[in-house]
Amino acid sequence: MLTETLAAIRPLDDEAIAAARALQARLTKPPGSLGALEMLAVRLAGLAGACPPPIPEPAALAIFAGDHGVHAQGVTPWPQEVTGQMVANFLAGGAVVNAFARQCGATVTVVDVGVKTTLDPAKGLELRKVRAGTRDLSVEPAMTREEALQAVEVGIEIAQKLVDEGAKVLLTGDMGIANTTPSAALIAAFTHADPAAVTGLGTGIDSETHARKVAVVTSAVVALHAEDPVDVLAAVGGLEHAALVGYILRGAALRVPVIIDGVIAASAALAAAALAPASTAAMVAGHRSAEPGASVALSYLELEPLVDLGLRLGEGTGAVLALPIVASAVRVLHEVATFDSAGVAHK
Amino acid sequence: MLTETLAAIRPLDDEAIAAARALQARLTKPPGSLGALEMLAVRLAGLAGACPPPIPEPAALAIFAGDHGVHAQGVTPWPQEVTGQMVANFLAGGAVVNAFARQCGATVTVVDVGVKTTLDPAKGLELRKVRAGTRDLSVEPAMTREEALQAVEVGIEIAQKLVDEGAKVLLTGDMGIANTTPSAALIAAFTHADPAAVTGLGTGIDSETHARKVAVVTSAVVALHAEDPVDVLAAVGGLEHAALVGYILRGAALRVPVIIDGVIAASAALAAAALAPASTAAMVAGHRSAEPGASVALSYLELEPLVDLGLRLGEGTGAVLALPIVASAVRVLHEVATFDSAGVAHK
Repeated sequence: MLTETLAAIRPLDDEAIAAARALQARLTKPPGSLGALEMLAVRLAGLAGACPPPIPEPAALAIFAGDHGVHAQGVTPWPQEVTGQMVANFLAGGAVVNAFARQCGATVTVVDVGVKTTLDPAKGLELRKVRAGTRDLSVEPAMTREEALQAVEVGIEIAQKLVDEGAKVLLTGDMGIANTTPSAALIAAFTHADPAAVTGLGTGIDSETHARKVAVVTSAVVALHAEDPVDVLAAVGGLEHAALVGYILRGAALRVPVIIDGVIAASAALAAAALAPASTAAMVAGHRSAEPGASVALSYLELEPLVDLGLRLGEGTGAVLALPIVASAVRVLHEVATFDSAGVAHK
Repeated sequence: MLTETLAAIRPLDDEAIAAARALQARLTKPPGSLGALEMLAVRLAGLAGACPPPIPEPAALAIFAGDHGVHAQGVTPWPQEVTGQMVANFLAGGAVVNAFARQCGATVTVVDVGVKTTLDPAKGLELRKVRAGTRDLSVEPAMTREEALQAVEVGIEIAQKLVDEGAKVLLTGDMGIANTTPSAALIAAFTHADPAAVTGLGTGIDSETHARKVAVVTSAVVALHAEDPVDVLAAVGGLEHAALVGYILRGAALRVPVIIDGVIAASAALAAAALAPASTAAMVAGHRSAEPGASVALSYLELEPLVDLGLRLGEGTGAVLALPIVASAVRVLHEVATFDSAGVAHK
């Protein structure tokens, strides 16, 4: 299923890009006056292979949840059971991402791909647990290659299901106490950045905890001898990271834009890009997380974020905030009059 | 009416601010993890004098349109009749701002406060022309004090009408070929910045036109001897600038947030703040325009923009893009569960 997904990922359609560029120039606005939004709309035309590309509605957010063996190393002050408790909060509609999603009309699907506690079936929850949390990446590979591939396939299946149900854009979300630690390790591994430069304060940790976290990430990256992206993912990633890789890749294969949230999704995006370089064409960077690793990953992927407001919450909040901006950029190509049609004089 | 409006502007309510801060700390998210959005929601609680403050829906955008005598100096390659033609485009729903407003559900009202051509009555158009364009600010005051005050009152009345009709947030918009020139003059006058540093490329001009524009702004500011904010506005401003001053001030008096668009609105905001320093409490900077003067004005007002995507279109586009972000920030205080209510463990 991963093989089939990778094979389906195509480069941007040059004809649609040329058509979108030509259309932008005819619309009633000074050329270039929409800044980054013009290039974004043009790129999404290239992704869809159509000008104008579809307005990205309805929008679907998937929150992949998992736990992390590395929690045992004291990399975060939050208890591990918060992962499962926050899943319940998402399902009850009480988290920040739910409020944001209601604001812009995105649906929320929660996917248990690796939560430690056993979760009861519920509306809006996909029970797709591969294992009850990863192993401790600081002492052994977090996952076997087989487990990582299973989690990737969960992400592929969820993306396919959401698009089958009508989604025209996919948003990434995540929940997993301690998951900025594997994210930092993935970013250091894929970009060869200094682990200390990509390991941040996560949800807010003291300097002692941060030093421990940097040490954990550094030694994990030093011990890493894998070359294959799936092996890297298995060694130092998380189950939600692996699922996000599949989710992003399937979005790219289906030519649907995928709005990348923060540092967790950006680290997964690096793995996706390592597996299929052309998949970056489908990636839209929702926001610049306050986590330093997120900026390193986005630069490596050559993605400019749409929102930059110092958020460091995860859940998909930064992706959801960016959604109306993406939709606005595309809507221009559908709805704005040309100089000719509106009878507006040109300069 | 201006006097009454100024007298009604109050500082932020400390009690509501304290309540909003305390509420932010109890919600299911790491403290501070929403970055700039947390402070924004707290400030809007202080503005409303209530925690939570109202969700800013419905939203109303007013586009104030006017022409400029300084157009005769060749400060822009666009013909003056484009102002009226773009008003027709707004009314037909064909401009970029219409597409953006449809995306987020904002209403659009166009106000002719000084368009040179005579406009026919139309749905969504307020015919409130004070005069058919300003005089050439490079040779005489653009408006008399009386005309400027009339335009300010138009803005006051439009803000009051929109709020009476139910608007919970006001967005600023503008249309006026050549209006970045008076904007630059206002910004230089109110912030004492170097005219050359605040005079940009507007809708896209060549270096010769830019040099002419800088010269016009510089000599206008040098010739300016007014101290009173209304006299400054009359001397070097535009009719849409003056109307925006009244619109912003009335929003502040009604304790309704006003989302400031780009360089035109930011220059008007400087005049509003000069008349009523406490009015900045109601101002939300929608975006950072590519025009250099906008950043100078926002810094002077100590406002951080929400969106920064290189837009330089005007019309209100940057304010509308920011609206869902503002609404999301406020929605958090209404809808997010507390750690206690959601049964989520604290760190």
